Amino acid sequence: MKMLINVPETVVADGLRGLAAAHPELTVDPDTRVVVRRDAPVAGKVGLVSGGGSGHEPLHAGFVGPGMLDAACPGEIFTSPVPDQMVRAAAAVDSGAGVLFVVKNYTGDVLNFEMAAELAEDEGVQVTSVLVDDDVAVTDSTYTAGRRGTGGTLFVEKLAGAAAEEGAPLDRVAALARRVNDSCRSFGVALAACTTPAKGTPTFDLPAGELELGIGIHGEPGRERRGMMTAREIADVTVDAVVGDLRPDGPVLALVNGMGATPLLELYGFNAEVHRALTERGIAVARTLVGNYVTSLDMAGCSLTLCAADDELLRLWDAPVRTPALRWGR
Amino acid sequence: MKMLINVPETVVADGLRGLAAAHPELTVDPDTRVVVRRDAPVAGKVGLVSGGGSGHEPLHAGFVGPGMLDAACPGEIFTSPVPDQMVRAAAAVDSGAGVLFVVKNYTGDVLNFEMAAELAEDEGVQVTSVLVDDDVAVTDSTYTAGRRGTGGTLFVEKLAGAAAEEGAPLDRVAALARRVNDSCRSFGVALAACTTPAKGTPTFDLPAGELELGIGIHGEPGRERRGMMTAREIADVTVDAVVGDLRPDGPVLALVNGMGATPLLELYGFNAEVHRALTERGIAVARTLVGNYVTSLDMAGCSLTLCAADDELLRLWDAPVRTPALRWGR
Repeated sequence: MKMLINVPETVVADGLRGLAAAHPELTVDPDTRVVVRRDAPVAGKVGLVSGGGSGHEPLHAGFVGPGMLDAACPGEIFTSPVPDQMVRAAAAVDSGAGVLFVVKNYTGDVLNFEMAAELAEDEGVQVTSVLVDDDVAVTDSTYTAGRRGTGGTLFVEKLAGAAAEEGAPLDRVAALARRVNDSCRSFGVALAACTTPAKGTPTFDLPAGELELGIGIHGEPGRERRGMMTAREIADVTVDAVVGDLRPDGPVLALVNGMGATPLLELYGFNAEVHRALTERGIAVARTLVGNYVTSLDMAGCSLTLCAADDELLRLWDAPVRTPALRWGR
Repeated sequence: MKMLINVPETVVADGLRGLAAAHPELTVDPDTRVVVRRDAPVAGKVGLVSGGGSGHEPLHAGFVGPGMLDAACPGEIFTSPVPDQMVRAAAAVDSGAGVLFVVKNYTGDVLNFEMAAELAEDEGVQVTSVLVDDDVAVTDSTYTAGRRGTGGTLFVEKLAGAAAEEGAPLDRVAALARRVNDSCRSFGVALAACTTPAKGTPTFDLPAGELELGIGIHGEPGRERRGMMTAREIADVTVDAVVGDLRPDGPVLALVNGMGATPLLELYGFNAEVHRALTERGIAVARTLVGNYVTSLDMAGCSLTLCAADDELLRLWDAPVRTPALRWGR
């Protein structure tokens, strides 16, 4: 597998140097591996901190900026960041209004963010954590106890980020983040496995003519393998899995997400089938985001995340955001 | 090669249905294959129309909106749109102030846009065309006489789009578009070939351990094949090719572009090396855009486009834009 890299050992640091070069509005430290919005801490504002293994870009560093995260901590590829990164990030963004940790539900992330919360509290930073576990495909896996955190993370970070930007206090931002997580469900499909720089070969074996339903963003096993399906068939299975679990009784926000290597043209075609499938099931889509947002290196495939939306969540979704990967409004 | 599609024959139409579903601010007709900003024609404003073969998404339809294109005409995969699409687009966006066709330099596109310009003029629409030919890799190829149009298209569409949005008349928008094209140079590198839905197998053969320098966005041959190189080495070759031809005497705008399947983490790492190489050559980068903007389906690799910028071009770059793929400012 050929990669556009120097050596596997420096992939994350090189990526952070490149992020710094492209985005002077962020403070990026490739050594301590903390990415912070340049104007942090913002007076009176709750700080939002997230992080996780690298390889899912633009998640999380690409979501740092006004209206979303105040800081992100990238770990090694598919490996949790360490507590030291999170403590530094918390200190950098705390204005005195406290800090919310947004934690995807993987065992390593959960343990490290817990330890970091204790250390940060020792340093006088008030920390609340919220767990993201939106993936309906499996409970418990190689990486998790309970459900995995995937595309729902984008909604938690965007919507809680908007609430924090408006000046909501920590308990309200945390409650909103939990409500958003409870309102989100995801399901992913892989057509081809990803290859990590360190390993150099695909992380799992997916034969020609087969796909895997319910895949995780690290290539963790899903629900089942099937013979290749059409976009229409994949959309029906995916929508059924998400809707069957979420059971929305109003409009939804939709993220039609690419795993990394699937062309945007195909993602838009898949989005057409997702909208068709949702319409057939009587579900209205209020907003749709199509693109590569929560990826798995060069995995081919897609995932769908739906977030049941009320007027407050819609308003927060439309609120201005200014990050490398998500940007609209003022 | 597994794809997230229904059947090859409907890939373009399915993608347009999905674009329509995600972007109600665009008028998308999957049958006539014309994508128009919903508020067109804008009174007194020059209309910008572009188009070309599909498979390069988000180019061009993803660049339709205030501050950039008024309309786009997607052809079949890697195939020019037909004059009828362009004439419809011109009629839809002409406010009486005339229309600018932005044409990438491929033989089919050039002939069809020429014919469309004549037909539109017959219908009373004043049309000026500008050719984009920014690729320094080769002159003349399977698809072109002269240089190919690639990443420079994004700069022509953004900067001329901003000028049109400000109310500049047709002759000035056209002159600016030509000046931007003259200020842009690109060079691309492929690590792996792309696969078209119709063919189902890679468009060319690139052995393990080799890359192709100077590749086109349809997999046209480049300058040479070499054994695999590091990101640092690729950046040096790429920057030398672009800078040696452009010879900028001031700051540049940089597009570090993914061909489709290369992970964003790798693109950012490559951006770090591009910035290092430019700094070593005494060239300042005023703005950097990193991501998949002018793609070649699932090709792995990257391209670099530099645009020599003066104060006017910088101001137009920073001007608000609101399209599916490029969005900032108000």
